[in-house]
Amino acid sequence: MSRTEAIDRYLQEHLEAYLQETIKLCAQPSVSARGQGMVACANLVEQIQQNHGFQTWKIEGYGNPVVVGRAAGKSERTLLFYNHYDVQPPEPLELWDSPPFQPEIREGVLYARGAKDDKGEFMARLAAVEAVRAAHGGELPCGVLFVVEGNEEVGSPGIAKFVQDHLNLLKCDGAIWEEGGIDFEERPGSSLGRRGILAIELEVQTLSRDAHSGSAHILPNAAWRLVRVLASLKDENERILIPGFYDDVKPISELDLELFRRLPDSEQYLRETFGVRGFVNGLTGYELKKAVFNPTCNIQGITTGYQGEGNKTVIPAKASVKLDFRIVPDQDPTDILKKLRAHLDAEGFTDVRITYTDYMFPAKSGADHPLVQLAARAAEEVYQKPYQLIPLTGGSSPVYAFAGPLGIPVIDAGVGYGITNRTHAPNENIRIQDFHNAARHIARILDGFAGIF
Amino acid sequence: MSRTEAIDRYLQEHLEAYLQETIKLCAQPSVSARGQGMVACANLVEQIQQNHGFQTWKIEGYGNPVVVGRAAGKSERTLLFYNHYDVQPPEPLELWDSPPFQPEIREGVLYARGAKDDKGEFMARLAAVEAVRAAHGGELPCGVLFVVEGNEEVGSPGIAKFVQDHLNLLKCDGAIWEEGGIDFEERPGSSLGRRGILAIELEVQTLSRDAHSGSAHILPNAAWRLVRVLASLKDENERILIPGFYDDVKPISELDLELFRRLPDSEQYLRETFGVRGFVNGLTGYELKKAVFNPTCNIQGITTGYQGEGNKTVIPAKASVKLDFRIVPDQDPTDILKKLRAHLDAEGFTDVRITYTDYMFPAKSGADHPLVQLAARAAEEVYQKPYQLIPLTGGSSPVYAFAGPLGIPVIDAGVGYGITNRTHAPNENIRIQDFHNAARHIARILDGFAGIF
Repeated sequence: MSRTEAIDRYLQEHLEAYLQETIKLCAQPSVSARGQGMVACANLVEQIQQNHGFQTWKIEGYGNPVVVGRAAGKSERTLLFYNHYDVQPPEPLELWDSPPFQPEIREGVLYARGAKDDKGEFMARLAAVEAVRAAHGGELPCGVLFVVEGNEEVGSPGIAKFVQDHLNLLKCDGAIWEEGGIDFEERPGSSLGRRGILAIELEVQTLSRDAHSGSAHILPNAAWRLVRVLASLKDENERILIPGFYDDVKPISELDLELFRRLPDSEQYLRETFGVRGFVNGLTGYELKKAVFNPTCNIQGITTGYQGEGNKTVIPAKASVKLDFRIVPDQDPTDILKKLRAHLDAEGFTDVRITYTDYMFPAKSGADHPLVQLAARAAEEVYQKPYQLIPLTGGSSPVYAFAGPLGIPVIDAGVGYGITNRTHAPNENIRIQDFHNAARHIARILDGFAGIF
Repeated sequence: MSRTEAIDRYLQEHLEAYLQETIKLCAQPSVSARGQGMVACANLVEQIQQNHGFQTWKIEGYGNPVVVGRAAGKSERTLLFYNHYDVQPPEPLELWDSPPFQPEIREGVLYARGAKDDKGEFMARLAAVEAVRAAHGGELPCGVLFVVEGNEEVGSPGIAKFVQDHLNLLKCDGAIWEEGGIDFEERPGSSLGRRGILAIELEVQTLSRDAHSGSAHILPNAAWRLVRVLASLKDENERILIPGFYDDVKPISELDLELFRRLPDSEQYLRETFGVRGFVNGLTGYELKKAVFNPTCNIQGITTGYQGEGNKTVIPAKASVKLDFRIVPDQDPTDILKKLRAHLDAEGFTDVRITYTDYMFPAKSGADHPLVQLAARAAEEVYQKPYQLIPLTGGSSPVYAFAGPLGIPVIDAGVGYGITNRTHAPNENIRIQDFHNAARHIARILDGFAGIF
């Protein structure tokens, strides 16, 4: 029996035990948005790690405790798993077919808040670790680190500082991010990176209080001033006009351009889902796919003046806009913030107040990294379909907090199945076959990890 | 005893009776915004007119009834008074020192909802009519028409059509608008005109539903499109960019320019009231005064996207703006609406929907009209202060509905005293001395009216 066969047999034989452990973990509420059950869930996660042979640290000082588990291996090489034990609030409760914190298996599907995001992911990884340990005679071929945090659903505000403060503890050679899996056509794949984000609010005030619009010829209107500010930020072709904004944008690699050519077309899907007549700048086909490397300046919302029925003859005294910049490698959100301030000042908008609300750096791994190649080979063996590599996805995540300081590649692998998991929604679920396959995929990555360096 | 002395003696002797009649009228609620007491008040106004020798018409079909009263005079010349019997809602009730519909005189001041706006104005005019009739031996020297409507506080939606439908009944040679009086330094005066208005809403939709801002590089953002639309409407120097917008703007007359030179400076007042650092286009002094002849495009409010706390990574599917254009003689709001549509289409904004919410034409009388001169002489006699003529005020009113179709000059004269009357607010009031002086002023105008032609 080959080692891979031993791994698969172990997983087959122990599947039910890991499902039961997943059910136990999902039954423990852990809603970070309202601080429900956080300490109890952190303790449970720590206990589970210890039960599976990990040395653990429950680290305070970064919001809800971060539970770190470490297991040594034959090789010095270490693979890190990032997961989180907090979940989204389960409301609206009336839309659940079974109570969110009373996990239930129906027709091969496990339903519970957190089943997918992210407790099922965590447990599939633990199953993979045990299978590999068993197939290697009780000793792991490489070191394994779990970082399981409790603030992911509220934006991971402390995670970057946590990593910076624990570089020695977290020393590793690669990481698998919190999720992954197969798309709606059951194709496995991984994103190679996420864009960064700078989320801000701009505020302008021209009067101490709203005035009657009969005086609009003499009293300055805050809404109009905000329109001028916005028009100064971006031209009609979506080019951002802040001096130096594009200075640190890296060209797209030839390998990534080739990956875009191979990616399936999502135009029809987007047209149907969002009723789009035309895409930004009239983009289509290959150009549309690689546009994710264009950083954006997005208006989230504008608040100013009268917003009720009919009209009210008022000059708004105040106006504000919420903006997010999605930035690409190697742009730095703190640098962009400084350049924005300098731009506003140079344009005469010294009265415009900037409030910073959130930022993340971009992070991206190379498609040619051996870890990526290993994950692809393993996935093609498990899923019997070609592995799909997405050079960059449009959203943002705290991947950068690990990838940057630890100098490691980060990939996805997990239990997901398209958008059917109902993540963040009622009836969140995972298919048991996806749980099983994810464990098989991750076990193969663990099995090969030490050998790729 | 001169005729003027006879008028003044009549008013002195009958002042108490007219105040009691005013109190009775103010005690009748007539809140058009919620249809409270409208028919009862229309009937009361009709009864009062009949009691004072007027033939009356209670005309239906234009909202609440319009009460028209007509009294013939020795001359064919006729002066029209525009008033309204509806009032603003009295809330918040707890801020009134006496109940709004239980009129009360305290220290020479009458307090009641409608005391100033507009029931006291109406009664001061009736007092003037009676005084002039008495001084002329029982027959008026000119015809008098009252138009007392019941929808002014809800925007007079039917008044323009009402006038158009009753040109014969309303035939006259001049009009006194609903209000007037003295300013905060007790200087009498009149506005010679009001700007028109075109109030609209522009709406744009780029997606069938909001999308995640991670797709901002490909999915069009409605808020950004609205910013482009707005930037196309007006340049940074407040010049409106709609082709043909200024075609019908009349130059300011030499006489009006001279009037602006004489008007007192309001800069300090505006700076203190609205905390203004700089006025529109840096205007100051004489230039600031005559800027009322600049038509405006004012943003009343913008509604789009997320407006709560913090940030939400969303691409707004819809965005809308409420705008009002204040227009000057001889601009036409219906023509401006057409030119706006043509401009949007020409700029590629064919998807932008325009919803019209309100319009009024501008209206303006000449400072050299004999009615204006008569009102000035009469006011200087009553108030012993120079008469102040304002060529144009920034707001809008249905003056145009009368001035245009009837081809008449329209001036102000009334019981007002600066902003102390608390119009539309709790403790609305008039000073009895202002009621008395208004009647004396208006009686002098009636006395001389037939002689100015």
